[in-house]
Amino acid sequence: MSLSSLAPQEIADRLERARADYESFAARGLNLDITRGKPSAAQLDLADPLLTAVSPGDVRSADGTDTRNYGGLAGLLELREIFAPLLGVPAAQLLAQGTSSLTLMRDALSFAMLHGRPGSAGPWVREPVRMLCPVPGYDRHFQLAASLGFELIPVGMDGQGPDIAQIAELTRTDASIKGIWIVPVHSNPTGLSMSVQRARELMELTTAAPDFTVLWDNAYALHHLREPHPEPIDVLGLAAEAGHPDRPLIFASTSKITFAGAGVAFVGGSPAMVDWFSRHTGDGSIGPDKINHLRHARFFGSPEGVRDHMRKHAELLAPKFAAVDEVFTRELGPDDLAAWTRPAGGYFVTLAVPPGTAAHVVKLAAEAGVKLTPAGATHPHGIDPDDAIIRIAPSMPPLEEVVEAAEVVAACVRVAAYETAASASAD
Amino acid sequence: MSLSSLAPQEIADRLERARADYESFAARGLNLDITRGKPSAAQLDLADPLLTAVSPGDVRSADGTDTRNYGGLAGLLELREIFAPLLGVPAAQLLAQGTSSLTLMRDALSFAMLHGRPGSAGPWVREPVRMLCPVPGYDRHFQLAASLGFELIPVGMDGQGPDIAQIAELTRTDASIKGIWIVPVHSNPTGLSMSVQRARELMELTTAAPDFTVLWDNAYALHHLREPHPEPIDVLGLAAEAGHPDRPLIFASTSKITFAGAGVAFVGGSPAMVDWFSRHTGDGSIGPDKINHLRHARFFGSPEGVRDHMRKHAELLAPKFAAVDEVFTRELGPDDLAAWTRPAGGYFVTLAVPPGTAAHVVKLAAEAGVKLTPAGATHPHGIDPDDAIIRIAPSMPPLEEVVEAAEVVAACVRVAAYETAASASAD
Repeated sequence: MSLSSLAPQEIADRLERARADYESFAARGLNLDITRGKPSAAQLDLADPLLTAVSPGDVRSADGTDTRNYGGLAGLLELREIFAPLLGVPAAQLLAQGTSSLTLMRDALSFAMLHGRPGSAGPWVREPVRMLCPVPGYDRHFQLAASLGFELIPVGMDGQGPDIAQIAELTRTDASIKGIWIVPVHSNPTGLSMSVQRARELMELTTAAPDFTVLWDNAYALHHLREPHPEPIDVLGLAAEAGHPDRPLIFASTSKITFAGAGVAFVGGSPAMVDWFSRHTGDGSIGPDKINHLRHARFFGSPEGVRDHMRKHAELLAPKFAAVDEVFTRELGPDDLAAWTRPAGGYFVTLAVPPGTAAHVVKLAAEAGVKLTPAGATHPHGIDPDDAIIRIAPSMPPLEEVVEAAEVVAACVRVAAYETAASASAD
Repeated sequence: MSLSSLAPQEIADRLERARADYESFAARGLNLDITRGKPSAAQLDLADPLLTAVSPGDVRSADGTDTRNYGGLAGLLELREIFAPLLGVPAAQLLAQGTSSLTLMRDALSFAMLHGRPGSAGPWVREPVRMLCPVPGYDRHFQLAASLGFELIPVGMDGQGPDIAQIAELTRTDASIKGIWIVPVHSNPTGLSMSVQRARELMELTTAAPDFTVLWDNAYALHHLREPHPEPIDVLGLAAEAGHPDRPLIFASTSKITFAGAGVAFVGGSPAMVDWFSRHTGDGSIGPDKINHLRHARFFGSPEGVRDHMRKHAELLAPKFAAVDEVFTRELGPDDLAAWTRPAGGYFVTLAVPPGTAAHVVKLAAEAGVKLTPAGATHPHGIDPDDAIIRIAPSMPPLEEVVEAAEVVAACVRVAAYETAASASAD
C-alpha cells in the first residue's frame, strides 16, 4: 500500500498512532547517536594486538631500519606491500603516510592549488575551480572542497556509479572543472559500488581540463558486510589504457580497519602523480610514523591477514545493518513511507523520506534523544534540494541501541510523512 | 698563532703533514655520517617504555575517552597540560597534533597562502611573499619557504638573536615581508639562544605587514647539554604586551625527546591564531593520533618527567659535543684555522672555516668517507656567499665514530686552509 492511496481518515488514524509511538519514545529520555561512521568498541578491540606489536628491543623493519628514527618518506615498504594488492596499486606507487586519508586529500588539493599537478598549466589557485560531487555523498569531501573555495557541482548517481553522461557534458567544455569525488566501493552514504565499466568510462572521458583529477577515495575497499562483494577495480590500469594515467589519485586508510584516527593512511597514483605528491610532502616532512607502520605490518602479516580481520568486523557490523533494515521494513514498509539502502558493505544506510520532511525528521529525532547527521549533509554546501535524504550510521552503538534508534527514526518518519499527507489531503 | 703570520715554508710543511694525515684517514675506508640531527639508538632506547605505555584494556585517557576512536581535534588534554608549562603556552592554546612540527609549519604557511591568517587582508598567495631567514639557519625551514615561492631574505645574527635593526628596517616599509623563522633556543645550527630582550623587540616591531608572523620553532626548547640553560621565553605574553598578540606561532615536537618522526608535534599561539589553525586543520582531519598522545602523557607523567628524561639525553650527547670540541681545539686551534661553536644545547656545532673553503672541505670529507651536510645548506637557497659555514651533527654515531669523523673533518679543514694559504703566499 502506498501513502497516496490512503483515505483522509486512515491518514489521521495513522498519524495519531505515530504521534503516540513517538511520544512514548520521547518519554524514555534517550541519548543515542547514529551520526558518524565510527567503529564500535568491540570492533576496535579486534585490533588491540597492534598496541603491543612493536616492543622494546624489537623495533626494526624487515630491511633492518630502526623505525624509531627519522626518514623513509614513502612509508614502510612491508606495509605498502600488504596493502598494494588490496588497493590495486603497485607498492612502488603506494605511499603509507600518517593517520588520516582525509588529510592526504587536503594535502593533494592544497598542493594542486599552490603548485598545480602534473599536466596543469599552473597553480589551480589562479583560476576558479569547480569540483563534481556525486550526491548523496560524503559531507567531509564537500566541506574540504568548499573550504578551498571550490564551487561544488552536484552530479546524480545510479546503480553503476555517478551519471557519466552528465559528467561528460560538464567536463567537455568547462576547463574549470578540475575533479570529481569518487567513493568507488560501498559509497558513503549510499553503499553503492561503482562498476568497472563506469570506472573505465570515467577514465576515458575527454575533459577540457588537462589535469582533471579523480579523487578516488577507496575508504571502504575492504569493508564488506556480506558475500558477494565487489572486486578491486584496477583504476590505474584503466587510466593508463585510456591514455590518462595521471587522472586518479587513490586514497585509503586503516581507520575503519584498525583504530579510527590512529591507523595508517595511503595515497597512490601513477609514478608521475606519486612523485609529485612525495616531492611536496617532502617539503614539510622528514617521513611518517614508521613505528605505527611496523605495528600494522606485523599485525596483518599479509593481504589475507587483512581480509581475515575484515571478516571479523563484518560479523560485528552485519547484525546492526540487518536490525536497521528489519525495523524500517516493519515500521515504514507497510505504507511505503520511505526507501532505504541495504548495503553490502561500508558504514551507512541512506534513508530517503518523503520530500520536504528530512530536516523535520532529524529535528524530531533530536528532540526524542536520537542524534542524526544533519539533513542535507550528504549534499554540497549541506543543501539537499529535495530535503529527502538522511544518513544513518549504525556502526558504533551496541545492537540494542541501534534497534532503539532505528525505531525512533521510523516513528519520526511516520509522524512527518503522515503530517505531510494529512496536510495535503486537507488542501 | 694565526695562519697569516706563517712563513711560506711553514705553510708548505703544514700542508704536507695535513695531506699525509688526510690520506691516512682516506685509506681507512670509512663510512661515517654526521649530516643530520638524528638521535642515536641509545637516545631512542630511553623512550622505549613508550612502546608499551598503552596496552589492550587500558586505552582510555584521563577523561574516559577511548583513544582508539575518532575525534578530539585539539589533541589529548593531559599531554597538552604536560607540555604547556615547558613551552610557555597555556594548554588551551596549545594543540597536540601529528608527529611532525615541520608539517605543522607547512600547514600554517599553506593556510596563510590559501586563506590568509587573522589580520591578513587576504590570502598570501595573491601577492609576492618575502620571508626573513636568520643565517646560519635550518635548511628545512628555508626549503619549505622556498617551495611555497617565498623570496628568502638573509638576516644576520648576534649573541642575542637575529639582527633587530636590520629586521626593523626591512619590515617597516615592505609589506611583502610576512614573517621570519626563529629557533629561539639552541638554534639550528649555531646553538645560540635568543635573549628575552631581543624577543620583546621582535614582538614590538611596527611592521608594514599587519600579519607579520614569527614562526617560533622551539625545536630545542628542552634540549640542554649542560647548566645553566635558557629559561623558556613567554613569547605570547611579550606579543600581547606589545599589542601584537597574533604575531608568534609556536612549534615544537618530541621528535628529539622520544622517537624521531614518531613523537608528537605541537602548535600554539594566541586564541585567535589557534582557532584559525584548528579551523583549517579541521577541514582535513577528524583528529590526531590520540593513542600516541596517551603513550606520551603516561610515559612522562608531568613536566618534571620530561625534564628528567632530557637530562638522560644530555648524558649521552654531551660527551659527543665535548669530543668534537676537543678534536677541533687540538687540530685546528694551534694555527687558528677555524672557529666553532660550543653549544649549551641543541644538536649542532657550527664550524666556520676560512672563506672560500667550506664546499672544498665537504668534498674532501666525502671522499674520505665522512658525509657532511652540503656547504651552504645553512643559508637561503643553499648559497653561503662566504662559503665558510659547515654544520656538524654529532648526535647519531657512537662516540668513537664522532671522534673519528671530527678528526677527518679537521684534516680536511687543514688541507683546505693550508692550500689556500699556500696559494695566497705564492701570488
